[in-house]
Amino acid sequence: MALQERAIRTRRAILVAAAAVFAEVGYEAATISEILSRADVTKGALYFHFASKEELAQAVLSGQLAAVPSAPQQKLSLQRGLDEAFLIAHLLASGDPVVRGSIRLTVDQGSPNDGLDRRVPMDAWLQFNVELLGKAKENGELLPHVEVAEAARMLVGAFTGVQVLSKIMTDHADLTERVSDLYRHLLASIAVPAVLTQLDTAADRGARVYEAAVRLRDAGEESEPGTSGAPSEESRVTG
Amino acid sequence: MALQERAIRTRRAILVAAAAVFAEVGYEAATISEILSRADVTKGALYFHFASKEELAQAVLSGQLAAVPSAPQQKLSLQRGLDEAFLIAHLLASGDPVVRGSIRLTVDQGSPNDGLDRRVPMDAWLQFNVELLGKAKENGELLPHVEVAEAARMLVGAFTGVQVLSKIMTDHADLTERVSDLYRHLLASIAVPAVLTQLDTAADRGARVYEAAVRLRDAGEESEPGTSGAPSEESRVTG
Repeated sequence: MALQERAIRTRRAILVAAAAVFAEVGYEAATISEILSRADVTKGALYFHFASKEELAQAVLSGQLAAVPSAPQQKLSLQRGLDEAFLIAHLLASGDPVVRGSIRLTVDQGSPNDGLDRRVPMDAWLQFNVELLGKAKENGELLPHVEVAEAARMLVGAFTGVQVLSKIMTDHADLTERVSDLYRHLLASIAVPAVLTQLDTAADRGARVYEAAVRLRDAGEESEPGTSGAPSEESRVTG
Repeated sequence: MALQERAIRTRRAILVAAAAVFAEVGYEAATISEILSRADVTKGALYFHFASKEELAQAVLSGQLAAVPSAPQQKLSLQRGLDEAFLIAHLLASGDPVVRGSIRLTVDQGSPNDGLDRRVPMDAWLQFNVELLGKAKENGELLPHVEVAEAARMLVGAFTGVQVLSKIMTDHADLTERVSDLYRHLLASIAVPAVLTQLDTAADRGARVYEAAVRLRDAGEESEPGTSGAPSEESRVTG
């Protein structure tokens, strides 16, 4: 059991180090030796968990959604979706290496033969948004004409670009404000007016949700599964 | 004069070849020798125009807006802005190497020391949108609360991400539809209702505008400056 726990910690340390290196130099220029030195693990340990740089990068890509803590439940599904987006913006703006590295791997086109499947994280975000928008539709939060799959693609796509532009222009310094602008506009075309006025789209929403998500996670870690403090089934915190 | 014209053609051929190589393999992996072979020019000719790969890439970035033909004037400034976005979507979806290469150079984060200034094309698009939205505001096309600079950032950012997502998921096959979805939603939060109903946001808008832009350019090239067929002062066609 202790052995298994150590293996999980080592795997986690390698993924964090790899993501940080990918965030700084991109996939092509990243080297296993730099990742080893950051993670402070042996080459043997790394290759025990990951057969290649490609496998490591794909694991970072696959863990993208899980790298963002689960935002607390909300009465409005639209707020829950917003909160997750604000959380990512907050993590990017505060320089979180795992989220930065994973998103860079997704957005950089890379070489045609690098073997990375960048659809994996995007599919996860699309699916996540489809589920929340589906609930929002059931709850009557959406305007009647809104098509769930289409709206999910638009939200994921638009967020991606707003973060790319913010990265280029300000190294993410203005990201939370840009995300706030984006959602105020986009939600006006999706949400029914009564819901729209209840949504919190302030630029500091991400920082506040992050505090709450961390408290939720810590409470979950301290208690046994099944107790009231445990994270919900939806919790995707891996840290 | 003939000499100067030949120099312009050579410079253009080098830029097109370079953009195509950047589109395929990205900045880091692109080589001068591959660009020379595509452009079918001598090394001396290339270095006469561009001192380095960096200078060449920066020229591709700086020429991004000019690589998209000028859409015909429209009564509504919002339609004019939309048309330019639909044109880019059409060019990306049809595999135009210059637009693909230039946009890839912008979006790929690259190495921290590659010296490329990715703000240049983004600044150009932001400025272009600020001007059109400013006119739209003067003409009463915008809802009263719309802030021009903020809306420009949102439009440029959201477009960027929708194309990134479409590239990842479908290699741009669904791009024109995704752009149509995006603008239908975003414009509902920007345009006054009377204008909104007049805007053409159909997915095939880009193909139709492209035909018109090419006719406009050809007419301009056949006639002398100052004649009625000449492109307007705003024309940015370089080809």
